[in-house]
Amino acid sequence: MEIVVGTKKWSSWSLRPWLALKRTGQPFKETVIELRQAGASEAEIAKHSPSHLVPALKDGDLVVWDSLAICEYLAETFPTAKLWPQDAALRALGRSAAAEMHSGFSSLRGECPMALEVAPAAVAISEATQKDVRKIVERWNQLLKRSGGPFLLGDWSIADAFYTPVATRFRTYGIHLSDYGDTGAAGAYCERLLQTPEFLAWEADSLA
Amino acid sequence: MEIVVGTKKWSSWSLRPWLALKRTGQPFKETVIELRQAGASEAEIAKHSPSHLVPALKDGDLVVWDSLAICEYLAETFPTAKLWPQDAALRALGRSAAAEMHSGFSSLRGECPMALEVAPAAVAISEATQKDVRKIVERWNQLLKRSGGPFLLGDWSIADAFYTPVATRFRTYGIHLSDYGDTGAAGAYCERLLQTPEFLAWEADSLA
Repeated sequence: MEIVVGTKKWSSWSLRPWLALKRTGQPFKETVIELRQAGASEAEIAKHSPSHLVPALKDGDLVVWDSLAICEYLAETFPTAKLWPQDAALRALGRSAAAEMHSGFSSLRGECPMALEVAPAAVAISEATQKDVRKIVERWNQLLKRSGGPFLLGDWSIADAFYTPVATRFRTYGIHLSDYGDTGAAGAYCERLLQTPEFLAWEADSLA
Repeated sequence: MEIVVGTKKWSSWSLRPWLALKRTGQPFKETVIELRQAGASEAEIAKHSPSHLVPALKDGDLVVWDSLAICEYLAETFPTAKLWPQDAALRALGRSAAAEMHSGFSSLRGECPMALEVAPAAVAISEATQKDVRKIVERWNQLLKRSGGPFLLGDWSIADAFYTPVATRFRTYGIHLSDYGDTGAAGAYCERLLQTPEFLAWEADSLA
């Protein structure tokens, strides 16, 4: 298998399926496309991805071109990696949370882009982004309570892959979850996401 | 099971999982929340949905709150309905297309909202929306060619549910796919989406 990702310090879309693929423990080839090179990035991406977007996963002649679809494909292809939990209800909740991230929280995503190279510093954030943060805290607390933790659905899953870029944003932009309704569980979970071996490996690559 | 949807003539997010649920042939309860009633809609939605968005699916005490997650839950719960194809590669392509719709094509979605009550009439569309249309035509052709049709993955699937609101937009805003690179297959598929018994049932409800 080969995964095509964008510049590691910036590409939050790429980070998610990369974490899932890393988690399977399977060997894989990685191709990094440097983003923000004007036309050059687009031309390079088009060689790999029919959506003209990264990430993309290649498996033989199959190209899976969306981050969530790649994660689902990995979950099906490597069932022993348990990228989704066995419990059908928990899985449905995890898919709700991942898909909500996939299509929503646009204010946070636009205003606080992933930037792993930037030293953490608190910035003022808009009301819409504050609303997104409160919603994420609420969602994390709801799922951690239901599963018992330590990750959203108990063991680490695709839902956690989807929220790892958010955890980097909270760190980079100095967003303290206790200011947004957290009584401790969401903040601890956020720290946990940033300490998984898979994320630490991505982060080290991104700064190399 | 109970599905909570928004006003049927407008809620493109609701239409997608409703089509999948209808397709299962299972009986279900339906709750329609009238959108665009200012605070009243929000308060009504909050009673049903932890994301404060419609649609939501309730199954016992489980609430699945995202359109794509609902479709995946239905596919798992009712395997004989074959909401995804048996073939793993086709399924991965279908999930890519559905997830791409879920997070993308924002110009088309913003500029050409679903409005089933509006009489079709051609309007001028922006360059960004034209780009979205060309991309959708390309995606449809690619999948129809691979599967052999008549739907994106052969038999009707969740991928078709995700593109049915788009078909209504093309009709409402007088967008002719032949102007965007279609040589016939995409246009015929678009017509086909609007003639499924499930969509016709939704449309009739929306105008009642």
